[in-house]
Amino acid sequence: MAKQVFIDSAADYLGQEVVINGWLYNKTHKGKLAFLMIRDGTGIIQAVVFSGNVSEELFEQCIHLPQESALRVTGVLKEDKRAKGGCELQVDTLEIIHIAEEYPITPKEHGTDFLMDHRHLWLRSSRQHAIMKIRHQIIKACRDYFDGLGFTLIDAPIFTPSVCEGTTTLFETDYFESKAYLTQSGQLYMEAAAMAFGKVYCFGPTFRAEKSKTRRHLTEFWMIEPEMAYCDLSQDMDLAEGMIEYVVQQVLENRKDELETLERDTGRLEKIVRPFPRITYDEAVQILHEANAEFKDGDDFGGGDETIISDKFEKPVMVTHYPAQVKAFYMKTDPAKPDRALCVDMLAPEGYGEIIGGGQREDNLDILLTRIKEHNLPADAFKWYLDLRKYGSVPHAGFGLGIERTVAYICGLQHIRETIPFPRTIYRLYP
Amino acid sequence: MAKQVFIDSAADYLGQEVVINGWLYNKTHKGKLAFLMIRDGTGIIQAVVFSGNVSEELFEQCIHLPQESALRVTGVLKEDKRAKGGCELQVDTLEIIHIAEEYPITPKEHGTDFLMDHRHLWLRSSRQHAIMKIRHQIIKACRDYFDGLGFTLIDAPIFTPSVCEGTTTLFETDYFESKAYLTQSGQLYMEAAAMAFGKVYCFGPTFRAEKSKTRRHLTEFWMIEPEMAYCDLSQDMDLAEGMIEYVVQQVLENRKDELETLERDTGRLEKIVRPFPRITYDEAVQILHEANAEFKDGDDFGGGDETIISDKFEKPVMVTHYPAQVKAFYMKTDPAKPDRALCVDMLAPEGYGEIIGGGQREDNLDILLTRIKEHNLPADAFKWYLDLRKYGSVPHAGFGLGIERTVAYICGLQHIRETIPFPRTIYRLYP
Repeated sequence: MAKQVFIDSAADYLGQEVVINGWLYNKTHKGKLAFLMIRDGTGIIQAVVFSGNVSEELFEQCIHLPQESALRVTGVLKEDKRAKGGCELQVDTLEIIHIAEEYPITPKEHGTDFLMDHRHLWLRSSRQHAIMKIRHQIIKACRDYFDGLGFTLIDAPIFTPSVCEGTTTLFETDYFESKAYLTQSGQLYMEAAAMAFGKVYCFGPTFRAEKSKTRRHLTEFWMIEPEMAYCDLSQDMDLAEGMIEYVVQQVLENRKDELETLERDTGRLEKIVRPFPRITYDEAVQILHEANAEFKDGDDFGGGDETIISDKFEKPVMVTHYPAQVKAFYMKTDPAKPDRALCVDMLAPEGYGEIIGGGQREDNLDILLTRIKEHNLPADAFKWYLDLRKYGSVPHAGFGLGIERTVAYICGLQHIRETIPFPRTIYRLYP
Repeated sequence: MAKQVFIDSAADYLGQEVVINGWLYNKTHKGKLAFLMIRDGTGIIQAVVFSGNVSEELFEQCIHLPQESALRVTGVLKEDKRAKGGCELQVDTLEIIHIAEEYPITPKEHGTDFLMDHRHLWLRSSRQHAIMKIRHQIIKACRDYFDGLGFTLIDAPIFTPSVCEGTTTLFETDYFESKAYLTQSGQLYMEAAAMAFGKVYCFGPTFRAEKSKTRRHLTEFWMIEPEMAYCDLSQDMDLAEGMIEYVVQQVLENRKDELETLERDTGRLEKIVRPFPRITYDEAVQILHEANAEFKDGDDFGGGDETIISDKFEKPVMVTHYPAQVKAFYMKTDPAKPDRALCVDMLAPEGYGEIIGGGQREDNLDILLTRIKEHNLPADAFKWYLDLRKYGSVPHAGFGLGIERTVAYICGLQHIRETIPFPRTIYRLYP
């Protein structure tokens, strides 16, 4: 029996008879030849059917087969330098596994809602395929980066009893006799883990019940959050820039075809090498003023502000020392300027906005207690978190990287809904 | 300035002066010498302080320093063959970063509730440390296994509109104007993804609102779920046994010290190599009857039944062809015996029960519609899932591996609550 092969390794079997299982992506025919473009999830190959090789009935069927019908083709692989995979299949036998109904997604323009309603099928398109392959590469690169540096993966819980940053954007669920909230960040748990393992990260879904309808927001998104004991803001920034450099370079190295499918300007990505620019909040505000942007000193930056700031740089820019009042209660303040936080946001180039937020955490018990009170947070729920400042409190820092925004940036996508297999937004819970 | 090193690489710096940042794990003293056992998350090292090298006040402080106080020690690394890491540190200078309050976890016995309430600190113990290191290794091995075989990671959504296996164990949340349920399995989404990418997997948290109080149940647990197009039950089982062999061998190879800390009988793990035994449900029932177990033919197996069956084997055993009625609606039935499902459960040895459940999925639209009706499921919510049988339906199969049960088995743990950093059970939502 002929060997079953996947299309991405077909070129290794030139001259051999092989079996390919797949789906019909496109077709044409000319006289006694039918040209079937077959996809199998790893690639696309042209299969050439000569009417003399199959029954008349089967040849007729081939010519009229609807898109996405399932096929098993057996034949000999022949070199074809013009083809993407470098070869085509000369079909000896062909078995139709399933004749598809008329495929709803056609080459004509579809509205976004229609495509999102058919996300389970839309994923079969070469564009969505390319995005998901790059997403996988980004996630793998993040994990490999931290694993390679000796970090320990410590999964943060999804159900939490308490609240990290405000309650208005929390999803709540009945939890037997009480209430649980879906996590917005694993950070507080990572702080506990960093005191046990030194260098840790978590990687999982996080949730925000944001009513926001912008193209940058999902209700469910994935974050990787490293945290290190005995680490200051500057070391934290070194880690963040090292990770982004590694991730971008891994994608450039391993996902060339996919970037090409997306028509991504890779020249801009090739420039993403260390060091990245580091500026303070004050310097960023200066940029806004010079651009005559409407901005009130002391405020946090909006999406438009971030674009103006990041447009000044070819690489991601790290902005530090925001006013403490616009940042979370756990941020450590600068001893030299107590109204400033030892924090960093990394803004991606090309208007993609914040992809990383992080900084040093408050390690002094009394200051932290004061901050919790000032923020009207329930001290009880933070009892365990406060313990970390009682038993060997040390300087520590970390950050969170939003996977979907990073995918949008690296792929060059207009809207975040294409960055995740099954996006969830305020209006979208299906499929 | 001396180089800062982590304890796990200290042996590479013998004879050199280094800085180690860590926490006091244990201490003794004798005359002019204080022996501080310091942990930094990567290992434990003995630091020897000679009273002549530090101020009298500091030496006194050393001797009375509470456990988990934070320290920065500088000194020369000296070979010590009796020590675990192969060396000890002769301290030149010592800086106390934080003096801990009296540490609540002491060498005396603590109740489970006490330890679970202090999970954020308990993770610092060498036993919990070893478990989490092995957990990380297991997760990494699973991902590497599928990545190496060309699978694409496709994250399944956490929020779902519909229900996979019954509604009684679902967590529900308000989702803007409607309701959403937390996923119990990514499988249905993986079926869609397999038709787009051929070979896929998802890896993420899943949720069951089970009132069960057994030592095998968590409300929040992690699963890896591969799914393959053009795959039958037998190929599915090949993949499952290949994965388990790889995972166990990776842990044996890379986590020797941690298995030793847990006093795991590694001889039993060394036997976990392919092929694994494969028996049918009927053969498994026969084993129960021979053991005079109380069991009604046609029922699903309980935990006790699984133990009796798996005790017959040294390796994980794969049980196939359960009665269709005890399995989910999407299971394909055996064409030769329509009352049996083309399914497989893998039962771990040593009484650890089911770690894998999977099988072939129904690929015929009409049969699937009938099954959905028979199970009183809302056909509307499954519209997208049914589409997969309209547009190129092919034989496909997959399985789900429960990470926590696998950690329990490989580590040899009595209770599943130790297998995850922050366990969630019916009574436990804190810390």
